[in-house]
Amino acid sequence: MEKPLILISNDDGYAASGIRQLTDMIRDLGEVVVVAPDGGRSGASMAFTGTTPVRVHRMANDGEAKVYACSGTPCDCIKVAVGQLLNRRPDLILAGINHGDNAAINVHYSGTMAIALEAAMKQIPAIGFSSCKLSVDADFSALRPTVRQMVTAVLEHGLPPRVCLNVNYPDAETFKGIRICRMGLGDWVNEVEPRTDPRGRGYYWMAGNFVSHDGHDDETDTWALHNGYIAVTPSHLDLTAYSAMPRIAEMFGA
Amino acid sequence: MEKPLILISNDDGYAASGIRQLTDMIRDLGEVVVVAPDGGRSGASMAFTGTTPVRVHRMANDGEAKVYACSGTPCDCIKVAVGQLLNRRPDLILAGINHGDNAAINVHYSGTMAIALEAAMKQIPAIGFSSCKLSVDADFSALRPTVRQMVTAVLEHGLPPRVCLNVNYPDAETFKGIRICRMGLGDWVNEVEPRTDPRGRGYYWMAGNFVSHDGHDDETDTWALHNGYIAVTPSHLDLTAYSAMPRIAEMFGA
Repeated sequence: MEKPLILISNDDGYAASGIRQLTDMIRDLGEVVVVAPDGGRSGASMAFTGTTPVRVHRMANDGEAKVYACSGTPCDCIKVAVGQLLNRRPDLILAGINHGDNAAINVHYSGTMAIALEAAMKQIPAIGFSSCKLSVDADFSALRPTVRQMVTAVLEHGLPPRVCLNVNYPDAETFKGIRICRMGLGDWVNEVEPRTDPRGRGYYWMAGNFVSHDGHDDETDTWALHNGYIAVTPSHLDLTAYSAMPRIAEMFGA
Repeated sequence: MEKPLILISNDDGYAASGIRQLTDMIRDLGEVVVVAPDGGRSGASMAFTGTTPVRVHRMANDGEAKVYACSGTPCDCIKVAVGQLLNRRPDLILAGINHGDNAAINVHYSGTMAIALEAAMKQIPAIGFSSCKLSVDADFSALRPTVRQMVTAVLEHGLPPRVCLNVNYPDAETFKGIRICRMGLGDWVNEVEPRTDPRGRGYYWMAGNFVSHDGHDDETDTWALHNGYIAVTPSHLDLTAYSAMPRIAEMFGA
C-alpha cells in the first residue's frame, strides 16, 4: 500500500527548529514533503500574495523529506504545494511546531493555524502544533509521543469535514494529558509602541500583551495551557454568529 | 451631546473610491476619522506587522474627516488608530466599501473583514461593507440608503458583544432587500498559475476561481448575493467546531 502523503509547513520558515523537529517526529509515518516560507512569517494570518509573483526553491532534503522554500505566505505555501508541487493530494497537512502558542483569539493572527484552515477549505485533514516555548532553539522532544499519537489517529480516522485541530502545548517537559477545548476569548493591550527615529520622525512598533477574558473558565484552551494540559481545539471555518441573527433581523427589519 | 466617533478603514487604501464614497454617505452621522493603508492590501487577512516599523502620515482632510495613511496592514490601522491616534474610543468602526465581495469563506482572506473582526476583539461595534462591483471607479450610490439605515441602527442599538457584521452587495442598482445570512462554504480552484520569467526561471501567480459548496442553500450569503439581496452575515471570533468535540475526544482518548 502507498504510504500516506504528509505535507508540512509553518510560519517560522523552512529552516526553523520547530518544523525540523516535527518532521523528525513523524517521518516514518508517511511520505513527508516540507513546503514552508523562506523566512519568518509570524502574524501572517491567512494573507495570500495577490500582487507580486511567488517563487519556490528546492532546498536540501531533510532525511528523505523533500524541502521547498517559498517566498510567499503560509497560505501561499499550501496553495502552491497542493496546486503545483505535489503529484498527489496530501492525506494530512501539519503546521508547526510553532515557537509560541496560538491559543484563544490569536488563531486569527496565526500563520500556523492559517495553514490548518487553508487545509480545511480544501477538505484535507490538518493539525497545527504550537508550543508556549518561544526560544528559537527550544527542545520539543517532550511533545514527541503525543504528536505521534495524534498524527497516527488522524491518519487512521480522518477528521470531520472542514474541521482542523489547533494543538497547543504548555512550556513544560511533562503534561497532565490532552484536553479537548473551546477557543478562549481575549484581547491585546498596549499593542502599539510609539518611537522617534534618528531623523526626529515618529513610527510605531506593534507589540502588546494578551489579556484573557475567560475568567476561571476551565473549558478554554487558555485555561488548559495555564494548567499544564495539552489543549486541542477543534476548529472550523464558519464564523457565523448564529445566536445574533434574530437580533440583527429585528434591528434591520429584515 | 457629543457626536459619535466613527472610525473608517479599508484594505484598498485611503485614496480608494470605495472608502471615499462610504465616508461621504455617513459623514453627517458622527465625527468621522479615516485611518487606512497607504495603498492596496487586498488579501491581507488579519496579518499584523511584527518585524518592521509602521509609519502613519496625516493626509488632506476629506471634508471635515481627518485622514491618516498607514504603511501597515488593515489590522495595524485599527490598532494604531484605537491605541494612539484617536483621543477617545470609537463608537463604531466601518470598513470598505470594498471593491469586490467578501462572502462565504473569503472572509478569512479579507482585509475588509479583518478590520471588523479586529474591532470585535476590542468589543467595538463594526460593519464591513463590500460590493460585487470590482471596478476601481465603481459607483456605489445605490448603496447609500441601506448603508445609512444600517449605520444608524448600529449607532443606536449597538451589536451583541464581539459580533460584527459582514455586509455584501450584489452588482446591481436596485436590491430585493436585506437578508440575514450564514457564511457560505466553498473553495478556490486553479488558484496557482505557473509562468516562466525572461531569464527562464519559474514563478507563480496566485489567482483562481471561487467555487461555492452550498448547492441550493438559500440561507447563505453566497445565495443571497446571487439572488439580488443584500447579504448581512453576523460574524464572531469563535472558530470552535463544537459538534466535533466528542469525536476528537474519542479519537484521542481525552
